[in-house]
Amino acid sequence: MIKAGIIGSTGYAGAELVRILTGHKEAEIKWYGSRSYIDKKYADVYRSMFQIVDAKCMDDNMEELAEQVDVIFTATPQGLCASLVNERILSKVKIIDLSADFRIKDVAVYEEWYGIEHKSPQFIEEAVYGLCEVNREAVKKSRLVANPGCYTTCSILTAYPLAKEGIIDMSTLIIDAKSGTSGAGRGAKLPNLFCEVNENMKAYGVASHRHTPEIEEQLGYACGEKVYLNFTPHLVPMNRGILATEYAALKKDVTYEDVKAVYDKYYANETFIRVLDKNVYPETKWVEGSNYVDIGFKIDARTNRIIMMGAIDNLVKGAAGQAVQNMNLMFGLKESEGLELVPIFP
Amino acid sequence: MIKAGIIGSTGYAGAELVRILTGHKEAEIKWYGSRSYIDKKYADVYRSMFQIVDAKCMDDNMEELAEQVDVIFTATPQGLCASLVNERILSKVKIIDLSADFRIKDVAVYEEWYGIEHKSPQFIEEAVYGLCEVNREAVKKSRLVANPGCYTTCSILTAYPLAKEGIIDMSTLIIDAKSGTSGAGRGAKLPNLFCEVNENMKAYGVASHRHTPEIEEQLGYACGEKVYLNFTPHLVPMNRGILATEYAALKKDVTYEDVKAVYDKYYANETFIRVLDKNVYPETKWVEGSNYVDIGFKIDARTNRIIMMGAIDNLVKGAAGQAVQNMNLMFGLKESEGLELVPIFP
Amino acid sequence: MIKAGIIGSTGYAGAELVRILTGHKEAEIKWYGSRSYIDKKYADVYRSMFQIVDAKCMDDNMEELAEQVDVIFTATPQGLCASLVNERILSKVKIIDLSADFRIKDVAVYEEWYGIEHKSPQFIEEAVYGLCEVNREAVKKSRLVANPGCYTTCSILTAYPLAKEGIIDMSTLIIDAKSGTSGAGRGAKLPNLFCEVNENMKAYGVASHRHTPEIEEQLGYACGEKVYLNFTPHLVPMNRGILATEYAALKKDVTYEDVKAVYDKYYANETFIRVLDKNVYPETKWVEGSNYVDIGFKIDARTNRIIMMGAIDNLVKGAAGQAVQNMNLMFGLKESEGLELVPIFP
Amino acid sequence: MIKAGIIGSTGYAGAELVRILTGHKEAEIKWYGSRSYIDKKYADVYRSMFQIVDAKCMDDNMEELAEQVDVIFTATPQGLCASLVNERILSKVKIIDLSADFRIKDVAVYEEWYGIEHKSPQFIEEAVYGLCEVNREAVKKSRLVANPGCYTTCSILTAYPLAKEGIIDMSTLIIDAKSGTSGAGRGAKLPNLFCEVNENMKAYGVASHRHTPEIEEQLGYACGEKVYLNFTPHLVPMNRGILATEYAALKKDVTYEDVKAVYDKYYANETFIRVLDKNVYPETKWVEGSNYVDIGFKIDARTNRIIMMGAIDNLVKGAAGQAVQNMNLMFGLKESEGLELVPIFP
Repeated sequence: MIKAGIIGSTGYAGAELVRILTGHKEAEIKWYGSRSYIDKKYADVYRSMFQIVDAKCMDDNMEELAEQVDVIFTATPQGLCASLVNERILSKVKIIDLSADFRIKDVAVYEEWYGIEHKSPQFIEEAVYGLCEVNREAVKKSRLVANPGCYTTCSILTAYPLAKEGIIDMSTLIIDAKSGTSGAGRGAKLPNLFCEVNENMKAYGVASHRHTPEIEEQLGYACGEKVYLNFTPHLVPMNRGILATEYAALKKDVTYEDVKAVYDKYYANETFIRVLDKNVYPETKWVEGSNYVDIGFKIDARTNRIIMMGAIDNLVKGAAGQAVQNMNLMFGLKESEGLELVPIFP
Repeated sequence: MIKAGIIGSTGYAGAELVRILTGHKEAEIKWYGSRSYIDKKYADVYRSMFQIVDAKCMDDNMEELAEQVDVIFTATPQGLCASLVNERILSKVKIIDLSADFRIKDVAVYEEWYGIEHKSPQFIEEAVYGLCEVNREAVKKSRLVANPGCYTTCSILTAYPLAKEGIIDMSTLIIDAKSGTSGAGRGAKLPNLFCEVNENMKAYGVASHRHTPEIEEQLGYACGEKVYLNFTPHLVPMNRGILATEYAALKKDVTYEDVKAVYDKYYANETFIRVLDKNVYPETKWVEGSNYVDIGFKIDARTNRIIMMGAIDNLVKGAAGQAVQNMNLMFGLKESEGLELVPIFP
Repeated sequence: MIKAGIIGSTGYAGAELVRILTGHKEAEIKWYGSRSYIDKKYADVYRSMFQIVDAKCMDDNMEELAEQVDVIFTATPQGLCASLVNERILSKVKIIDLSADFRIKDVAVYEEWYGIEHKSPQFIEEAVYGLCEVNREAVKKSRLVANPGCYTTCSILTAYPLAKEGIIDMSTLIIDAKSGTSGAGRGAKLPNLFCEVNENMKAYGVASHRHTPEIEEQLGYACGEKVYLNFTPHLVPMNRGILATEYAALKKDVTYEDVKAVYDKYYANETFIRVLDKNVYPETKWVEGSNYVDIGFKIDARTNRIIMMGAIDNLVKGAAGQAVQNMNLMFGLKESEGLELVPIFP
Repeated sequence: MIKAGIIGSTGYAGAELVRILTGHKEAEIKWYGSRSYIDKKYADVYRSMFQIVDAKCMDDNMEELAEQVDVIFTATPQGLCASLVNERILSKVKIIDLSADFRIKDVAVYEEWYGIEHKSPQFIEEAVYGLCEVNREAVKKSRLVANPGCYTTCSILTAYPLAKEGIIDMSTLIIDAKSGTSGAGRGAKLPNLFCEVNENMKAYGVASHRHTPEIEEQLGYACGEKVYLNFTPHLVPMNRGILATEYAALKKDVTYEDVKAVYDKYYANETFIRVLDKNVYPETKWVEGSNYVDIGFKIDARTNRIIMMGAIDNLVKGAAGQAVQNMNLMFGLKESEGLELVPIFP
């Protein structure tokens, strides 16, 4: 039985980790970290867990945690994991960081987009970017995994095979993404109030959102060149779900079947990626509560562009689900253990 | 492995049965019945099930089904199950009817409230009302279970211990219930359109809703007298969840602790009923996607009344979950098998 | 042209006052008070008002305001209006207080339910409870109006004629009310976050909500006896709207027509109260954005009770609209001036 | 007083026409056409209009209507207006067609995208495309106005000045649009059910939506060349509102101020177009219930693209509001008469 500790267990991503790990047969949570709710019963913070979780919230003590558990999940604001981690800890415990601290290889890019100094640049190189379907083998051997962002998971996986195979002109790539509000976290901020979000739709972080360089870096690895793209996130009045609509010019004269074959080449054997049938486009509800990525596409001969669409549950494949998938890989478990979650509809 | 057939598998309750049985270790679905979608792939009706369910929808042939499966779930409009069932079928297969056909013992009451003739009154007597926590032993021995209604499950369980123990004056009982819109089914009707339901709230079926006699009958058994009560359902702009707020005059001078002890007497050992802590009142989101019933209450000394509140997920404990719970009991499985669903939040 | 000042113009009720007064032909806003946003452009707080309102937010200086305007609206937390008002101010300016400070005649009851000391008890007696349809003549002559609460407006008007005419047994009255989330205000609090409210339903303030004594007092005047009742508010995932479902035992043997005649006796000539047709029950969406109160009812012969239902827009008839209606009465304007708002659907 | 008739008054756009015209001082509705509800009281179809509209619904008799009214609004499915109009009718009455019948000058394009034969091609040439801010003078002299589509109004106005002034490379223009569900109409169809739309987000009509050629034609007039673009609509779980996010490569090296000046050149004096301040991006809620178009933009130096964003209420500026604006122009009234609607928030 793998012993897990969660730092930041009372945010939405942390709570989803608790939900998923509660149903995981090979892991148990030993530490519910939450700086805001120390000594409060976890089930008093999330009453959905009444009679399911009996533990109290603990402080964020990574040193002590390293003694008690096999794996630590950090579902905390940017900068915290980097400020806590050190060699002694990493020698004892595996870390899966749900923040952005170890996602970007170029520390200057990290510091520019996040506006904070990186406290552990020495671990950036060894950290593995935990996009399981792309970096599976590296994840298996890693002791420090940078769990990808929610928008980035969806955005990258939707375009990855076409970038990798040189089907699309990367200089034309535009990603228009839409997210449910749980992506904004559980902080008590005016813009996240029900009456501000409900019956409303807006773009935000236009040409400046922090997930941009993460997507650019990963798709850059795929296509082998430096990528600059437009990424525009939007806030949608729903709890969960990300839909990414991506546009790119085609570099070659391809048919539907050609493109489908490229997707299948990379994803046909992937448990959690479903390439939809022809003329079927993803809807966030079809993946709600599950670890699936649904992908569809359409070639527009009129403009010589392809429109690629991907959908995930931002808290599952976009955060906690992928983190557990990484844990499964790191510990040699069945990759889908605890993640055989059937989408909940409606 | 228990082989299950579902008649009406493409309604919301039927789809929830599919979701739950897909994760059930001791049962498998052999027949996805759906008169509306015969020969269509199930996953084309619910694309959330793409690559999970491969089967096509079948016609509603109960005779043939009886040959192929061990248990039939009928998640169909009122009257259908009663029109199909017969002794030969019941001798071969167990039936769990999610419609109202076998819930009410007095056929005249059924025919009055439902406005249709009952086609199999001869089976009403033997049918067991499948409220597991109340009729567990009878369910175990039954071959025909009448799965309770969604409002009724919530309404009855919330008041049951106090009715049974004579704490409340049953002639004063008023049930004000609120339901998410999945309770209205998947029929394409104008009042169920997004723009009609969203940002709206209304009562309906005032003093005439069909769940009224069902609640009255069951609470009547509990208290040993004929019960007449007010039941008012309301439509709420959310997908899932029922909240019942119930009011009754107290017959005795009782404290919080007295009442809590009465609830605990009946529910302390129940896996799926959570009596909440003092001054905590149920919220539908705390049970979403799970088989839980959450119950809270408050004594109002000013008016000598008690306010009881209960919450369920109408598609799980209010329909498919309870149906599977009944199946588990009927086949001697662990009662919670396939139902250890952690509530999904947010 | 009446000059108006608003103290607390950046809460939701204050913003609705701005919306309504912007379309009012006989009034103009001279002072947008908002302690939280002093010197900030009002249109930067509510960008919906860009190019409509050019003013900046001002501090809450009632003394200075009294020199500059004819009427002050206080849309502020409990206690503020009572702490600011004095005889000098009242000699210069009319005040419409949207808080609870002057609603309850018995200062001990106010202090018990609100938990604060009343700073101006000397004005309670003269203050007029501004439920226009009930106290129209007194409002016209008043210089200090206590604008009713949102739940109370809906709850009282729905039962008032039957209380007044002795049709219902007041000791049996139960009010189960449901409100959209704008009633919770614009404060950045966790329970009001989108992800906490959306897809959720709960009761709150059970047997302890502050609107209880206000309803009891006013219905007590109507029926001429001391009233104790149950009032249970619920939070609904929608922005606007209150629905009150009220239950009471009938004292007399009455028909639908009898009760309809009683409602018509009081409301037939009221512009803003619509008694619906037989078997039609109010929906909050039918009054959204308007000053209407919609009322329907059903007699249940089985239980000898009547179910009364009322719906309002909590920010209009439940707050800002009624405040403007009171202003119109106090200044001798047409009562519906600025309030001829057609409900917005969908 | 202008006498107006509405054919198709019981759809959502028709109902919004009723709402707006009810508050219009110079017009009155004489004919509530609705083939589906003939002889039914209008207020029984939209109970929000109880005691406001007393009329019954009438059949769609354009010949008779032409005798009785000054202007006919057709808020009907594609093809109906074209099949009814003739010279005799147009000689007696002005027509504002909210369908697509007269929007596209090339009848072959219309027939290809809409899949129906055009029944009155002889009137296409004279019909004026009623985008008031662009074609104001032509509208004033017209007897047949083609009221623009909802997506198209928003999409065109957001890019128009930059297209007109040659700032953007039209071959790179991509429009990613998001719409509330009222745009899907009031038809009782499964995909429009509450439980299907709520908590869901999807693209539809990918590379095939009918508003594409309409946008291309109008922006083609602006820039003086043939335009092909990508237009992708998405369905959002809210009632009202369209947000268009538009991407294009810049043809020139421009600053924020340069672009702002271009927008101001065309829109500074427009009542209903609000170009927002720097770094402020439109939200659909800021325009809800009003006739405003809100526009913001951001230059991304990294990709040399501009992101333009526009928001409207699809039922107001996207349908009924613009129709009334056209009526005002055609009859020489104040352009904003009846349209001084303050946005409703929240």
